[in-house]
Amino acid sequence: MTNKLSNIITKIEPVDRELMKEAQRRLDSLTKPQGSLGRLEELAKKVVGITGEKMPCLDEKVVIVMAGDHGVVEEGVSAYPKEVTGQMVLNFIRGGAAINVLARHVGARVVIVDMGTAADFEKETRVVNKKIGYGTKSFLKGPAMTRDEAIQSIESGIEVVEEIGKGKLDILAIGDMGIGNTTSSSAIIAALSGCSVREVTGRGTGIDDEALGRKIQVIEEGISINVPDPKDAIDVLSKVGGFEIGGLAGCVLAAAAHKIPVVIDGFISTAGALIATELAPAAKEYIIASHVSQEIGHKLMLKRMGLVPLFDLNLRLGEGTGAALCMNLVEAGVKILKEMATFADAAVSERTE
Amino acid sequence: MTNKLSNIITKIEPVDRELMKEAQRRLDSLTKPQGSLGRLEELAKKVVGITGEKMPCLDEKVVIVMAGDHGVVEEGVSAYPKEVTGQMVLNFIRGGAAINVLARHVGARVVIVDMGTAADFEKETRVVNKKIGYGTKSFLKGPAMTRDEAIQSIESGIEVVEEIGKGKLDILAIGDMGIGNTTSSSAIIAALSGCSVREVTGRGTGIDDEALGRKIQVIEEGISINVPDPKDAIDVLSKVGGFEIGGLAGCVLAAAAHKIPVVIDGFISTAGALIATELAPAAKEYIIASHVSQEIGHKLMLKRMGLVPLFDLNLRLGEGTGAALCMNLVEAGVKILKEMATFADAAVSERTE
Repeated sequence: MTNKLSNIITKIEPVDRELMKEAQRRLDSLTKPQGSLGRLEELAKKVVGITGEKMPCLDEKVVIVMAGDHGVVEEGVSAYPKEVTGQMVLNFIRGGAAINVLARHVGARVVIVDMGTAADFEKETRVVNKKIGYGTKSFLKGPAMTRDEAIQSIESGIEVVEEIGKGKLDILAIGDMGIGNTTSSSAIIAALSGCSVREVTGRGTGIDDEALGRKIQVIEEGISINVPDPKDAIDVLSKVGGFEIGGLAGCVLAAAAHKIPVVIDGFISTAGALIATELAPAAKEYIIASHVSQEIGHKLMLKRMGLVPLFDLNLRLGEGTGAALCMNLVEAGVKILKEMATFADAAVSERTE
Repeated sequence: MTNKLSNIITKIEPVDRELMKEAQRRLDSLTKPQGSLGRLEELAKKVVGITGEKMPCLDEKVVIVMAGDHGVVEEGVSAYPKEVTGQMVLNFIRGGAAINVLARHVGARVVIVDMGTAADFEKETRVVNKKIGYGTKSFLKGPAMTRDEAIQSIESGIEVVEEIGKGKLDILAIGDMGIGNTTSSSAIIAALSGCSVREVTGRGTGIDDEALGRKIQVIEEGISINVPDPKDAIDVLSKVGGFEIGGLAGCVLAAAAHKIPVVIDGFISTAGALIATELAPAAKEYIIASHVSQEIGHKLMLKRMGLVPLFDLNLRLGEGTGAALCMNLVEAGVKILKEMATFADAAVSERTE
């Protein structure tokens, strides 16, 4: 591990439990039966513990979308051609994709990062360039990337968060774009957990039964050829991962180190979070799980991190769409803490029992 | 039934299925795998069908909170004293309650209606006065209200929606305030469904085991004394209901008649919706179920109307809090329909299979 990576991991502290208790006392003094706002109250407390602020500010909302291509697409595992990754990056830049619509809706800005797509965006100043290569290699023919590239991908994610800067970033949502990246994410959770590939592999953007069978076989072969070490998350990332998944892991580590709540989205951003938390278990407390994806391996990932998602809207798009929606709920919880009247303020009688 | 009530029921038409099909075609042309935004897409289609607009506008968002008191509180069924209803109405007016915070958060305004609280708000011009009485009677001593009062409560709800006016109301959320109203709502669903009282009675604002036992007994006795007719929703409302529950039923009927989507909240607003849909089954299509309440009878009510709630955040507050949060999701779905680029617009390749 490089100094940069180990430094950021060392920086991750436990959340502030004393302040969380104080937040609970305030929540209990507000004009509502105690605990009656359920998970909204839990979110408020969590953000207090993460940020170390009694009255956290969530004005600066950012969605980082990490894009990368996958060599394994040449094995016929996806319903869409590889070019779609680059085409969608341009769609993000023009504001026409789902994540643009939902980020606008919740008052967040979108930062697009080229972690390693097969396309060039040199003229697009609005794409953050962290390109490691023109897509990974097919993991049927050896590791998807070198160990150095895997580390570089995580460090690039850290840089993206640090370049935005804490003053301009109160809450982060992370999303992905990369044709083939459900294949890579299924391989990651299978490699880390030892579960059968079939149990953690779904239909991605919507493949049929035949393609699903092929996808499972490709992942099984990829794992048996590369033998990723489940005790070494960087090895797993390099053998069967993706550049954008490494980038997402870096975002989670940097958010945790800088005390910024990070909302994860579906299967791919959760795979990134999983790599991060295998490297730094303390980062788990900084993560907010937004939704349960339709991808069958997602629940297992969340369970491994001890995270309970907030909703299930049958989403399976990625891009950070579920995470963006979730930022709105987190903000709602924090506003409850900050803006509601107490029983004393409002002269409302307390319970009689 | 009066002319006013039967006229509004007659006015409720089926939603526009042709336009919903058209909306589905547009959703399928947008730059995302088909169906990948799950229930957001379903919401967009539903709003198109309800409003009869291809590109619906949801700018004018209103939360109506109906308040009323319940004679049955004198039987010791609630953790809070009766005065809290009136005190909370004042809290709503001053903007310090949870519903005020969440309505501001989603860009909605709050309309507070006194349907029949034990307090006086004559000087409060911001409280809509539809007072039928100073609380219902305890249903252990006869019907909670007369049949005429029950009809009047529903008609008052219709008036509140019609007085706001369609131009100033694109989407409606409904909520309640009334100490004792989970008791009334449990009695309503038990009476309509024939289920045992125990199966549909929960802890309301947070009563202990002893009080829960008493609450169940009170409801059982109330039903056996008053014998509400399950085939006559107005009879059920008058025997064991509440003024605010009748008002909520009126809101649902008026929204459906005027083609306005109406988002229901927890146990009490769903009891109101149930009364409405027993009177006018066609109104079901105009209702959006926001969340599953912690109150155990809520699921049964939703099932009876064929509605699937969007989320479960362990809420049990009422006031329209869950419905307000849900309006944000409905708006997100509609923005997806209206604002996303199509594959053709964005020059993104379609699927290869």
